[in-house]
Amino acid sequence: MAKHIGKQSIELEKNISIISTSSIVGTKEGEGPLREYFDVILTDNLNGQDSWEKAESKIASDSIKLAINKANLNPSDINYVVTGDLLNQCCGSTFGVRGLNIPFFGVFGACSTMGESMSLGSILLESGGAKYVVCGASSHFASAEKQFRFPMDLGTQRPPTSTWTVTGQGSAVLSINDNGPFIKRITTGKIVDLGITDANNMGAAMAPAAADILYQHFQDFSLKPDYYDVILTGDLGEVGKNLLIDLLKNKGYDISKNHKDCGIEIFENKRQDTHCGGSGCACSAVTFAGYFYNQLKYKKFKKMLFIPTGALMSPTSVQQGESIAGIAHCLAIES
Amino acid sequence: MAKHIGKQSIELEKNISIISTSSIVGTKEGEGPLREYFDVILTDNLNGQDSWEKAESKIASDSIKLAINKANLNPSDINYVVTGDLLNQCCGSTFGVRGLNIPFFGVFGACSTMGESMSLGSILLESGGAKYVVCGASSHFASAEKQFRFPMDLGTQRPPTSTWTVTGQGSAVLSINDNGPFIKRITTGKIVDLGITDANNMGAAMAPAAADILYQHFQDFSLKPDYYDVILTGDLGEVGKNLLIDLLKNKGYDISKNHKDCGIEIFENKRQDTHCGGSGCACSAVTFAGYFYNQLKYKKFKKMLFIPTGALMSPTSVQQGESIAGIAHCLAIES
Repeated sequence: MAKHIGKQSIELEKNISIISTSSIVGTKEGEGPLREYFDVILTDNLNGQDSWEKAESKIASDSIKLAINKANLNPSDINYVVTGDLLNQCCGSTFGVRGLNIPFFGVFGACSTMGESMSLGSILLESGGAKYVVCGASSHFASAEKQFRFPMDLGTQRPPTSTWTVTGQGSAVLSINDNGPFIKRITTGKIVDLGITDANNMGAAMAPAAADILYQHFQDFSLKPDYYDVILTGDLGEVGKNLLIDLLKNKGYDISKNHKDCGIEIFENKRQDTHCGGSGCACSAVTFAGYFYNQLKYKKFKKMLFIPTGALMSPTSVQQGESIAGIAHCLAIES
Repeated sequence: MAKHIGKQSIELEKNISIISTSSIVGTKEGEGPLREYFDVILTDNLNGQDSWEKAESKIASDSIKLAINKANLNPSDINYVVTGDLLNQCCGSTFGVRGLNIPFFGVFGACSTMGESMSLGSILLESGGAKYVVCGASSHFASAEKQFRFPMDLGTQRPPTSTWTVTGQGSAVLSINDNGPFIKRITTGKIVDLGITDANNMGAAMAPAAADILYQHFQDFSLKPDYYDVILTGDLGEVGKNLLIDLLKNKGYDISKNHKDCGIEIFENKRQDTHCGGSGCACSAVTFAGYFYNQLKYKKFKKMLFIPTGALMSPTSVQQGESIAGIAHCLAIES
């Protein structure tokens, strides 16, 4: 039985293990510093399809199948797939999952989706109702640019605060066993909205949500930041990272020594011209499923906080003058 | 501990009670046959806002607060809100939940969302990690027409197979106690896609998914349709209802005597000119939260299967020639 701890956290009793992961990424991610940790690097971002959306769905489908395969399982062994993406009506996931014949919970947490899917996957296992769950998240640079910003063909200039949507899907198979790495504690995010309205400055919109959930996590479990080897946020980028560190310092916690951000890790920003870093659901999903899972598995890190961060907005909400609401989901993973 | 039963079902061990519900609906739903069971009927579908999307978010927010209030609780008592909608990037829910200060899991199951949110809410309680969970789903006729079909101002003629998106949000507070009605069994849907491409014939796209999940539910629990007083699907409408009954007859199950469909119940189709019936996430959500919850609470029905049905598609996926994938989530509720 899970225990509800403090204000908004859960401690898991069972040994919820991440038994395998998979990561499929696009060409640009494949030129980045984490390239050797990804399972598949596309040579063509259309992925053999005739639209960016279909390319994303095929990435999602292939990544889920690969994670299942790497766990020496078949799709028919999996009780649930929990996954999501950024496309309207979550179509990246829908058409990715369609052919798999696995019960499906679609989730939407914007770029925090990997945190949401892994949280719910852990809870499904803890409840006793599942043996194997696949959790995932996808995004695609071109389908996201087209939908959220400008048609690709315009070649619109990107402002310095903008981030680069990662192309890929990260997937993780969860089950109960003694091998680990284990998902031990979950702190689930509330929506935090400090009124940012610039859709090209997502880092600023998400940093307050990341600060809020980290503060609550430390409070709920009476832990200090140095308990963890790494505190890994999703896609705050350069601007958001600095804001987060400052916001938490004001609340009495210094994470400057062990904080990393997937958006900063996945690209070499200057060489790859990504401005503030990577973003999108796939940013935290593939960075975790690739490099960080590997480091946990081989015990280079033993205790990690994983905090995918999301900016909840749509082009319609921005056009109607709504601010960009932030959310973040926090998982403590230990090997 | 929940038990995994058969191929894709869960039996819940704890007494997962639906302790309160709330339903807020638009003007047209307030003129329909279930009007006396809704908590709030809007007099203005803009709901005092300056856009249809903001109107939907305010409905969502008010319905969640009302359900919490009807359970004699405060928002700070609630551990999780699990809710979703049809708008791009689920913005109906995001801006509805934003002010509530409750940990949030956003879900997307198209019009099956109420089934998904109630399934995950039950599992959160069963896991031990929560005491109170609010589950919900919203849609709005005008925000959906504008997004999925044509601008409202065009007054485009609707084909006979089309359905009418319900304006509203239904919410339910779940907790563990002995009062009921209880969520006893859950069968989680897979995506079923028989190749329907007509976005004005959602009933045909969803009926195969409903047939698939009902067949699996009866098989997993060795139950016959007459075990239930009512078998209530989400929004198949007139066309989908007949298809579902035929599909299940071919698989050896006759549900013609006790099948009802929220899409048919919520409007008086001829008088209200809704063609095939109601649809949208709110269709099953408010019909359940209003009339059917009342009937369970007062034991007019004792055993009910609730099967919200969803058509997974976006305008982009339809334009790119994708078919409309169906999904349905099945919950057995007993008083």
